[in-house]
Amino acid sequence: MGLQIHRKVEHRPESRIDDAIAVLKQRFGDRLSTADSVREQHGKGEDHHPVVPPDAVIYAQSTEEVSEIVKVCAEYKVPVIPFGTGTSLEGHVAALNGGVTIDVSEMNEVLEVNAEDLDCRVQPGVTRKQLNEFLRDTGLMFPIDPGADASIGGMTATRASGTNAVRYGTMRENVLGLTVVTADGRIIKTAKRARKSSAGYDLTRLFVGSEGTLGVITEVNLRLYGIPESIVAATCTYPSMEAAVNTVIQTIQMGIPVARIEIADEVQMEAFNKYSGTDLPVEPMLWYEFHGTEAGTTEQAELVKAISDEWGGGEFQWTANQEERNKLWQVRHDAAYAAKALRPGAEVWATDVCVPISRLAECMIETQKDIAEQGLIAPIVGHVGDGNFHLVLIADQADEDEMARANGVNERLVHRALAMDGTCTGEHGIGMGKMDFLIAEHGEAVSLMRTLKQAFDPDNIMNPGKILTV
Amino acid sequence: MGLQIHRKVEHRPESRIDDAIAVLKQRFGDRLSTADSVREQHGKGEDHHPVVPPDAVIYAQSTEEVSEIVKVCAEYKVPVIPFGTGTSLEGHVAALNGGVTIDVSEMNEVLEVNAEDLDCRVQPGVTRKQLNEFLRDTGLMFPIDPGADASIGGMTATRASGTNAVRYGTMRENVLGLTVVTADGRIIKTAKRARKSSAGYDLTRLFVGSEGTLGVITEVNLRLYGIPESIVAATCTYPSMEAAVNTVIQTIQMGIPVARIEIADEVQMEAFNKYSGTDLPVEPMLWYEFHGTEAGTTEQAELVKAISDEWGGGEFQWTANQEERNKLWQVRHDAAYAAKALRPGAEVWATDVCVPISRLAECMIETQKDIAEQGLIAPIVGHVGDGNFHLVLIADQADEDEMARANGVNERLVHRALAMDGTCTGEHGIGMGKMDFLIAEHGEAVSLMRTLKQAFDPDNIMNPGKILTV
Repeated sequence: MGLQIHRKVEHRPESRIDDAIAVLKQRFGDRLSTADSVREQHGKGEDHHPVVPPDAVIYAQSTEEVSEIVKVCAEYKVPVIPFGTGTSLEGHVAALNGGVTIDVSEMNEVLEVNAEDLDCRVQPGVTRKQLNEFLRDTGLMFPIDPGADASIGGMTATRASGTNAVRYGTMRENVLGLTVVTADGRIIKTAKRARKSSAGYDLTRLFVGSEGTLGVITEVNLRLYGIPESIVAATCTYPSMEAAVNTVIQTIQMGIPVARIEIADEVQMEAFNKYSGTDLPVEPMLWYEFHGTEAGTTEQAELVKAISDEWGGGEFQWTANQEERNKLWQVRHDAAYAAKALRPGAEVWATDVCVPISRLAECMIETQKDIAEQGLIAPIVGHVGDGNFHLVLIADQADEDEMARANGVNERLVHRALAMDGTCTGEHGIGMGKMDFLIAEHGEAVSLMRTLKQAFDPDNIMNPGKILTV
Repeated sequence: MGLQIHRKVEHRPESRIDDAIAVLKQRFGDRLSTADSVREQHGKGEDHHPVVPPDAVIYAQSTEEVSEIVKVCAEYKVPVIPFGTGTSLEGHVAALNGGVTIDVSEMNEVLEVNAEDLDCRVQPGVTRKQLNEFLRDTGLMFPIDPGADASIGGMTATRASGTNAVRYGTMRENVLGLTVVTADGRIIKTAKRARKSSAGYDLTRLFVGSEGTLGVITEVNLRLYGIPESIVAATCTYPSMEAAVNTVIQTIQMGIPVARIEIADEVQMEAFNKYSGTDLPVEPMLWYEFHGTEAGTTEQAELVKAISDEWGGGEFQWTANQEERNKLWQVRHDAAYAAKALRPGAEVWATDVCVPISRLAECMIETQKDIAEQGLIAPIVGHVGDGNFHLVLIADQADEDEMARANGVNERLVHRALAMDGTCTGEHGIGMGKMDFLIAEHGEAVSLMRTLKQAFDPDNIMNPGKILTV
């Protein structure tokens, strides 16, 4: 983090925060911290929002401990904010009304792996890289990859996805069940381990994407996949964004089961070159990855190459082995850091929208135009197979005029996406940053969301001020 | 339907049903019916539950009309029961407290098809076969296939799936968004048309599988898929259920993207022969279908054949063309009718459970043993790739002792599945038939479901007596 803008905590009159902390301190001792440095570190994600530190941070070690903490907080009407790796992007962890942050990073055990059933159960602090490291010898993998080495709990809470979603789906499709601590401290399990079920309301999907506002996720059952026999990756540049997107549309329409298709625009390509010292052509680029048998990936790659040629794509740059492939994807994952390097000292403001793929090229091009008109720097990268793309606005938070222009670009981006029947966020979530946009997107349906929030958390202690006001 | 057992409607004291019907009659005229035959036809699905007719049936023609009807019913505290094709299996349409059934069969238009985005929007009365007929010239398909030619609205409401779910998912994965009339008659849209979204609570998934208890579904946005270049189907018999299931487990684990894998046990095979005059071997059988390119399906088939051989599978009987393939699948889809033919005059009671696939063979074999011990006839068929199987209990509803034994088998089946970390229903739903099992499965979590139901439908007018009591 560069510049740290702080925002004042607005304690509620009914919140007996000091009493709650006294009780919790007695129970958790040194695992409860009220040190400034610890609180500040937990008051902000990797986003452009101000730091809003909680009153205390507790490092929980079990579901039962989380339940105990929530019960105390419920009694004293004190906000509870769950915290994983702090990599969220819309102010999800800011303690707007103060309260207690529950850090689950010490709840980081893989509890079971059922290889025959292709599933596992993990604690919420397990990160995606840690899980895949753990799985390495089993021949299995967990494909969801939001870029950051986020916690599985946080990925669940924000309905994360990333580069592999076009083939493997998002957290919505890959969470089989959850253990959750409710706003009154009860421990519930949302589902058994069956692959599908028609038994009652889909509580699993309700907590996936609820951003800590309905309860605290303390265990996650996940789908796993066999590591494919063959993985082939390639990059290819295109004469225009349309050409790149049309290649993707046709690929998806033909049902070619590509595992990843990612896009970067010219500005992002320049950023990569500056940051990584590469000499990539400054043209829109697609990254591809194919999973399957040897014959299958070869066929997929040939089919896509033929489509790509039709749209004027350049040569495919193939990667021959895992090491090269990792390097190729590292470049892609460094997009935000590379963007930042375009203007040292400035903050990055990563935003995302998702539109029907038929409108994607149009949406990106209009956005590029708007950025240029506003005199801003904001590279575009995207999970183009899903119609999801990111704008990384590089702005100086201390420059009010520049922040206002960045804000305008973000606002117009969202309304452009909504007008195209898209969503204000494909994978980052609402947090405190997109609450107005939630209403613009869902209209009357937000009142149902509010009804639900009020029913599950009548005192509004679960991560208040996020997703919606009550 | 054979024998028709009736159950008395239990009107609630606060329900002013006569006033509601008078108001609605004036508005809807002949489209509101109180004729006995119409009411009876709407009081039962294709299940073993008694007929419980509503007080009136209205054939709605638009979302706005549904909203009007619900508003009147809300005012007079009259139950509302949505009705599609009446093919549900757990008493979903029974009017336990009387009320008004909204028949959506006249809301059967395909409203839009977005070929580039692989999605469409339909009214709830469109059936799956009708949709695929409509799509034929576009090269697209909607793969979810629960056997019956059910309505898309009903399939959504029961979270249906069927033979293609192992590759394409269930209604949970394939509904992109809904238009819903809430319990107070408001019209809401749950989602835009983007392929993924992190914008707020997942109302779409909340209404998928809610069985009409939270609102009436009046439009459905669906994912579509390109019709594969090559479709190859085959059948193969096995020396035992374990051998068949082990073939499936290994196929899934290797990540072979098989589109369908279905199982039938010896009893079901005998039923097929009797019903269709075929001469199939009376041994456990698997049906396979492979989707992909020519090379892809050939490779998939070869890989599966090799696995099958290891487990002692017989010769693969290939189908050469679409007509033969349709015949092959028709045999499978006739399972319930064939089962019924084992004992003319008896009723069929179709139940289903779903377990982790590693426990599937064990679950099926113990169930076969129980059936034999009870002296009952109950063939097994299943969507084995998902761990989901059906028992078709053939029983004489007038024979109390036999019904008690059938009930015992069903109860033990469910508890067996739950003990294996499975679910009491993979795709049929809870309806009025599995409410106790919902509690056995979800425990404390049912209280959250109840909180949700009470918040969304405080007067309990939406399909009361289904899923849970309030």
